[in-house]
Amino acid sequence: MIPEALEQLVGELGKLPGIGRRTAERLAFDLLRRSPARPVALAAALERVGSEIGLCPRCFYYAERGQCVLRCDRERDPETLCVVESPMDVVAFEKANPTRMRYHVLGGKLVPMKGIGPEQLHLAELRARVAEDGVREVIVATSPSVEGDATAIFLAGELARAGVRVTRIGRGIPTGGSLEHSDAETLRQALDGRRELAAP
Amino acid sequence: MIPEALEQLVGELGKLPGIGRRTAERLAFDLLRRSPARPVALAAALERVGSEIGLCPRCFYYAERGQCVLRCDRERDPETLCVVESPMDVVAFEKANPTRMRYHVLGGKLVPMKGIGPEQLHLAELRARVAEDGVREVIVATSPSVEGDATAIFLAGELARAGVRVTRIGRGIPTGGSLEHSDAETLRQALDGRRELAAP
Repeated sequence: MIPEALEQLVGELGKLPGIGRRTAERLAFDLLRRSPARPVALAAALERVGSEIGLCPRCFYYAERGQCVLRCDRERDPETLCVVESPMDVVAFEKANPTRMRYHVLGGKLVPMKGIGPEQLHLAELRARVAEDGVREVIVATSPSVEGDATAIFLAGELARAGVRVTRIGRGIPTGGSLEHSDAETLRQALDGRRELAAP
Repeated sequence: MIPEALEQLVGELGKLPGIGRRTAERLAFDLLRRSPARPVALAAALERVGSEIGLCPRCFYYAERGQCVLRCDRERDPETLCVVESPMDVVAFEKANPTRMRYHVLGGKLVPMKGIGPEQLHLAELRARVAEDGVREVIVATSPSVEGDATAIFLAGELARAGVRVTRIGRGIPTGGSLEHSDAETLRQALDGRRELAAP
């Protein structure tokens, strides 16, 4: 009953994260409802992304028409390198607080159970940057999870020989969060990461 | 910080219903993450929908390459015509219970406050079909809302002269619903629409 072309669109939309069959149908029908130009405008935006966006071969954030969007080889402080899992993490940091740091996108975290080992991440390129760019501190900002922590510990071991400082982002209660609704691990991390407000 | 082409895609995705800025970003980043072929596959599906799908000029359900998907001018029982607001309503009926009814998509419901009057709906075409197709019953399946009800009453008045039976879909407690959580209007409709199970 649904036209074949529309069915194909529903299928493609349903591959997106968090979009189930029902939502995909609603989106597809809405795209057609407003004006015939709408699917075409979205198609054009997708085509452009497909042809213009790639990954920077140094930092693995996005490159646009072959040029790193972060200009990772200049324009930023070479001494501080923040290691993250995905490009979205870079966007999150820069939105919250535009910095002068350089970034290195690992492309994931170590998950041995799923076959994601050091070879699946952009680690060789990280070692090369640390050796060549005059990095003094590597801030490990992988996710606050068991695998993110394991990846951080692995990185600390890898980079120990390079003579750089390796730090891990702070852990604890998020701003606006409540003690009551925090899990035990978060509370433990908050205690571990306590800071002195006044000395006797 | 987000590449321009990606920003444009986020903007287009953000125009979809229920997709806010954050979700649009997540979708756009995910489209890039998996493989370079993904945005292109979705673009192709959209292009195809844009070029192949239109509205049938008789029933206003979808037409594919110029031909009504419902084959509304033949293949279905001409005596029963079900009037709905949108193409999604046709899909809902046919999914639940494939019927031999013909459909007529109004393209909305009367909302005078928003300037949607009879001229904005496919009413002239409905009158023509009722006059020409040998329709005996028009089932009004506009939404169970104040405007949907007003539209149904308006249609009943319009079609009274045509000598057809005009009915309204049943109202009451949905299957699986609870009395406890039903609103007063639904309970009133359920009482009004009660059916005899046994006669004394």
